[in-house]
Amino acid sequence: MKSNPAADHVYFNDGFKCSTISISTNLTDQNGSGNSVGSQGSKEFILTEDGKKVKPPTSTLDCTHTWLQDCARRTFNRKTLHKRLPIVSWLPRYNSQDAVGDLVAGITVGLTVIPQALAYAGIAGLPVAYGLYASFVGCFVYIFLGSCKDVPMGPSAIVALLTYQAAQGSWQKSVLLCLLSGIVELLMGLFGLGFLIDFVSGPVSSGFTSAVSLIILTSQIQSVLGITAKGNTFVEIWTQVFHNIEHTRAGDTVLGLTCIVVLLLMRSLSSCRIGPTNEEECSTFQRAVNKILWIVGTARNAILVVVCCAMGYMLHSEEHGAPFRVVGEIPPGLPSLQLPPTSVSANETSDGVAQGFVEMVHSMGSGLVVIPLISLMENIAICKAFANGKPVDASQELIAIGTANIFNSFVQAFPGTGALSRGAVNNASGVRTPLSNIYSGGLVMIALVFLTPYFYFIPRPTLAAIIIAAVVFMVEVRVVKPMWRSKRSDLVPGVGTFVACLVLPLEWGILIGVGLNVIFILYHAARPKLTTELLTTQSGVEYSMITPDRCLIFPSVDYVRNLVNKQSMRQNLPVVIDASHVYGADFTTATVIDSLISDFKQRGQLLFFYNLKPSICAIFEQVSAAQFVVYYQEQQLDELLKERHYVQKRLETA
Amino acid sequence: MKSNPAADHVYFNDGFKCSTISISTNLTDQNGSGNSVGSQGSKEFILTEDGKKVKPPTSTLDCTHTWLQDCARRTFNRKTLHKRLPIVSWLPRYNSQDAVGDLVAGITVGLTVIPQALAYAGIAGLPVAYGLYASFVGCFVYIFLGSCKDVPMGPSAIVALLTYQAAQGSWQKSVLLCLLSGIVELLMGLFGLGFLIDFVSGPVSSGFTSAVSLIILTSQIQSVLGITAKGNTFVEIWTQVFHNIEHTRAGDTVLGLTCIVVLLLMRSLSSCRIGPTNEEECSTFQRAVNKILWIVGTARNAILVVVCCAMGYMLHSEEHGAPFRVVGEIPPGLPSLQLPPTSVSANETSDGVAQGFVEMVHSMGSGLVVIPLISLMENIAICKAFANGKPVDASQELIAIGTANIFNSFVQAFPGTGALSRGAVNNASGVRTPLSNIYSGGLVMIALVFLTPYFYFIPRPTLAAIIIAAVVFMVEVRVVKPMWRSKRSDLVPGVGTFVACLVLPLEWGILIGVGLNVIFILYHAARPKLTTELLTTQSGVEYSMITPDRCLIFPSVDYVRNLVNKQSMRQNLPVVIDASHVYGADFTTATVIDSLISDFKQRGQLLFFYNLKPSICAIFEQVSAAQFVVYYQEQQLDELLKERHYVQKRLETA
Repeated sequence: MKSNPAADHVYFNDGFKCSTISISTNLTDQNGSGNSVGSQGSKEFILTEDGKKVKPPTSTLDCTHTWLQDCARRTFNRKTLHKRLPIVSWLPRYNSQDAVGDLVAGITVGLTVIPQALAYAGIAGLPVAYGLYASFVGCFVYIFLGSCKDVPMGPSAIVALLTYQAAQGSWQKSVLLCLLSGIVELLMGLFGLGFLIDFVSGPVSSGFTSAVSLIILTSQIQSVLGITAKGNTFVEIWTQVFHNIEHTRAGDTVLGLTCIVVLLLMRSLSSCRIGPTNEEECSTFQRAVNKILWIVGTARNAILVVVCCAMGYMLHSEEHGAPFRVVGEIPPGLPSLQLPPTSVSANETSDGVAQGFVEMVHSMGSGLVVIPLISLMENIAICKAFANGKPVDASQELIAIGTANIFNSFVQAFPGTGALSRGAVNNASGVRTPLSNIYSGGLVMIALVFLTPYFYFIPRPTLAAIIIAAVVFMVEVRVVKPMWRSKRSDLVPGVGTFVACLVLPLEWGILIGVGLNVIFILYHAARPKLTTELLTTQSGVEYSMITPDRCLIFPSVDYVRNLVNKQSMRQNLPVVIDASHVYGADFTTATVIDSLISDFKQRGQLLFFYNLKPSICAIFEQVSAAQFVVYYQEQQLDELLKERHYVQKRLETA
Repeated sequence: MKSNPAADHVYFNDGFKCSTISISTNLTDQNGSGNSVGSQGSKEFILTEDGKKVKPPTSTLDCTHTWLQDCARRTFNRKTLHKRLPIVSWLPRYNSQDAVGDLVAGITVGLTVIPQALAYAGIAGLPVAYGLYASFVGCFVYIFLGSCKDVPMGPSAIVALLTYQAAQGSWQKSVLLCLLSGIVELLMGLFGLGFLIDFVSGPVSSGFTSAVSLIILTSQIQSVLGITAKGNTFVEIWTQVFHNIEHTRAGDTVLGLTCIVVLLLMRSLSSCRIGPTNEEECSTFQRAVNKILWIVGTARNAILVVVCCAMGYMLHSEEHGAPFRVVGEIPPGLPSLQLPPTSVSANETSDGVAQGFVEMVHSMGSGLVVIPLISLMENIAICKAFANGKPVDASQELIAIGTANIFNSFVQAFPGTGALSRGAVNNASGVRTPLSNIYSGGLVMIALVFLTPYFYFIPRPTLAAIIIAAVVFMVEVRVVKPMWRSKRSDLVPGVGTFVACLVLPLEWGILIGVGLNVIFILYHAARPKLTTELLTTQSGVEYSMITPDRCLIFPSVDYVRNLVNKQSMRQNLPVVIDASHVYGADFTTATVIDSLISDFKQRGQLLFFYNLKPSICAIFEQVSAAQFVVYYQEQQLDELLKERHYVQKRLETA
């Protein structure tokens, strides 16, 4: 073989060598499926940013200039306004149908959020009033900034638990955390970091939610039993529960368990129906009954709280108090409008040492990042669940919940987000726009102004029962079976996250899950599959075709080089690497491909590349001192082989 | 459109639905390039483990049984013996040519390693004798276990620097580190973790090596100037150098600079040649001169040391000492054979506090992981450089250098590996097998026994000059230009690693580099490119074909769902997703594809999958309650459309 075998065959050099390749860059459809018998293809558009770069940049200066112009245009145009202030899109088209839908949904959600808010404050380790404080200002903010109609801004069980872990039940820290996590969310949104939750896979998210639900459930067991059990992790709390089991109060236990059973029964009411399954065939009576069943099922928390509150009031006696623990005094009226606290005085901390701003922030630790991410995760879960295929703008949602939390922190709220359970209620009640938030927020304000004296008698076991009856359905046992059947390896991150969240701090748990998933991705990138085929050209020359099934980037190229060499040494045939599936390459690839070419040259074996994208050609070309040969049409191989006197060589060896 | 549109068309259901697909799993060549006009394809073999599983497992029990048998067979067969004890492969075929090659190479490397060992001990902050202790036992061990002929086991500049950073110049810690890192290497090798270095890309490796070279160079400046400058990082040391510049000793500086210049000149000799370029046309005289030039160039370090040592002896006077600092007393003879120290007594530590085993290990920190990984990196770099396409077994190399370090630690050595600079000398001297190590190891032993008294007079600036003249070529400025030209984004991890290594501890630097690279991979996985085409079937029906260019796994599926929905809503045409390039999917993909199908169903738009691999079909099938329709031949689309009464629908809208 000659060292530069095609040097004197100008025609083929020009046609086949990468440097002078004249193939149109429009040829992005390398799928090969376009064996277009009878199909007329028009390359209309390419969806990604990369594909949009059809006009080559003329110079760096020019480029920067255009880029700045683009930036400016993007920031100040109409589309951006609609994207960043979604109310501008839907308010002008608001009609009476929307108004009715939003009113019904808003009131239903309001009836749900009041008992939930009282209960979730307990998860965060705060007096119940703080739950209500967290449930109205954010709603009003979300109306302007929120991009998703189904999101009911307010406290959520998961975020309340994270708040407890970061703020240890100090209201000052919780409120400061609300401000700071709001700022983090807003910044993340402005910098477009919403994509980060893409890296939380389904199994990890399920494992996390299930573990959190179990932890929340565990934390409420003590309220149902009427005992005290302190602890941070799942195991700690259960140990404490068993340790204090003899102090169980009969009144609390009976009421709590009864409430749980009643709630579960009422929950099933909302899906009960009488009469024919088809709505239109029902009589008016049947329809009314169905509607009432649904309302009772949906407003079950509110109904239960009212009933138990009345019970508490009646059973209450001046001497013995109630037979169960009650919520007690709630400061009446709306919270005062004030700056979030930036220090805690000595007599307000558990260890009697005053804390400044820096100490407070330091004690929150990773909560400042974890709470925004998990808030977004829960929020986006609502958006996706009811989006009907419309794209969800994670960054805008971050901006919305971030701003909502910042405003919330001025009325002594703890961090909140769109809570999944109320999102479902919202959607089922026929919500049409984010305006429904105005009614639920309004209801909470009414409750704060007029109802707080009555909240005194709400039994604590009832609130615990509300939480338990809600979170017990968040343990996602049902995903295990399809996961086992479809992709068993996905159980590893799923179960890993679940176990890690139960035994370690929550943020470690989710990090471990994401880490396990990232290892899978890296493994994918590092170990491509190679298919080898023994083919024959039109003129009957045998050659070996090796097809990698994905891109060649640094973790995989050495592996590919080894496999290709191993395979090629076995039979001394010309080797063609089919690069149809190779969509990316980097500098390391280029250097390794260069050594692969030298390997072949040293053995005197022929190596060709088939269907290598011009963009990747350009990368290889800059590194490869040795010439590499690419062709794009099956029949060209024969001519390439002839040129290199391959047939003669073969005869010699025969 | 009907809800289950194909239910009464049994033929097409059977043919196209995934559950009953009869396509052979042998159809792994989905490259589509196989528009095999005139090519007869034979699917001979599939290279990867995955591909080998052509026989479906009959039952789990059976499977486990077979797997255990396989394991047993793999562990105890001949091939494994050859792999794990490479000497068994080459020793039986050892001939006189091999013997001559190894002898010449071994002696050349021996003459290189003695001055290098003395110098590198200084980098590790140890007395020069320890360099020699680290240079012989490991060589003998490598003969039995090493799989690569060019590797000269012994101290290396990079590993010496890492040793200094982990052991702070304490000989007890350095020796213990040698044992422990040897054990870590051995374990990593046995667990097959050699693949880890695949994740260090070319740019990161270049950045790291360049930064380390600059740091080593910096650490030697003080010896050349005859001053003392303590510090850990690049910036610290330079600050100290400028601070102490007035204490510069003239003798040291003159000698040091002269030595550097002489070494650089001698280095260029090895590539100088007289007479014609073709070896065969040279006269005997010309050949002899060329040979001598090459030997002088290659053995330059040894020659310089001998000359300077003689100079030191002559200029030395009883009253004033030498005009430059010399190495001084070296304990004569071989090191004693003893267990590595597991504690340091109080008067041996810098702070006067005794340290037990736990404290010693704790103070080494991440060095215990970083040293094995970097040792492997340097070692594999040699193997790859001279492998000529033969596969390199990283795990076996880990076992070899691990065992060598374990043995080394019993003769008070600090950690070593195959040093890149001597590897090049070894190869250039015509090494044939790892047996060459016996000669270089032997030379070191001879030096220890007979030459130590003469080493007293070796000037320290000369040793520093040897190091500087070696590492200055390890600053890889030359890779910047091709990197800039071929793939600019690769400069980010490259330059990032370089800067991070200079300003932070080395292990942080390389972690940052690898982290940056991993982010690139994740971005690749998260943002596939989608190509959309407007095509027409044979019977003239327009449809939209969307082709993702890589696998759909969890970070990307939501993005893909959004893009596909956005695109499909724009024009109400049937959509075909061409899955030819989709080689992988996970549980998250399956759930998102399920929602995508519901999205389309709600809009009443048709969605088909083209060319979806049966293995991925199986994953989707277990999750998708909605039926998804796959076809594998272009012309089937028309029939599928007809079945779903698509043409009529289109006429209505027209």
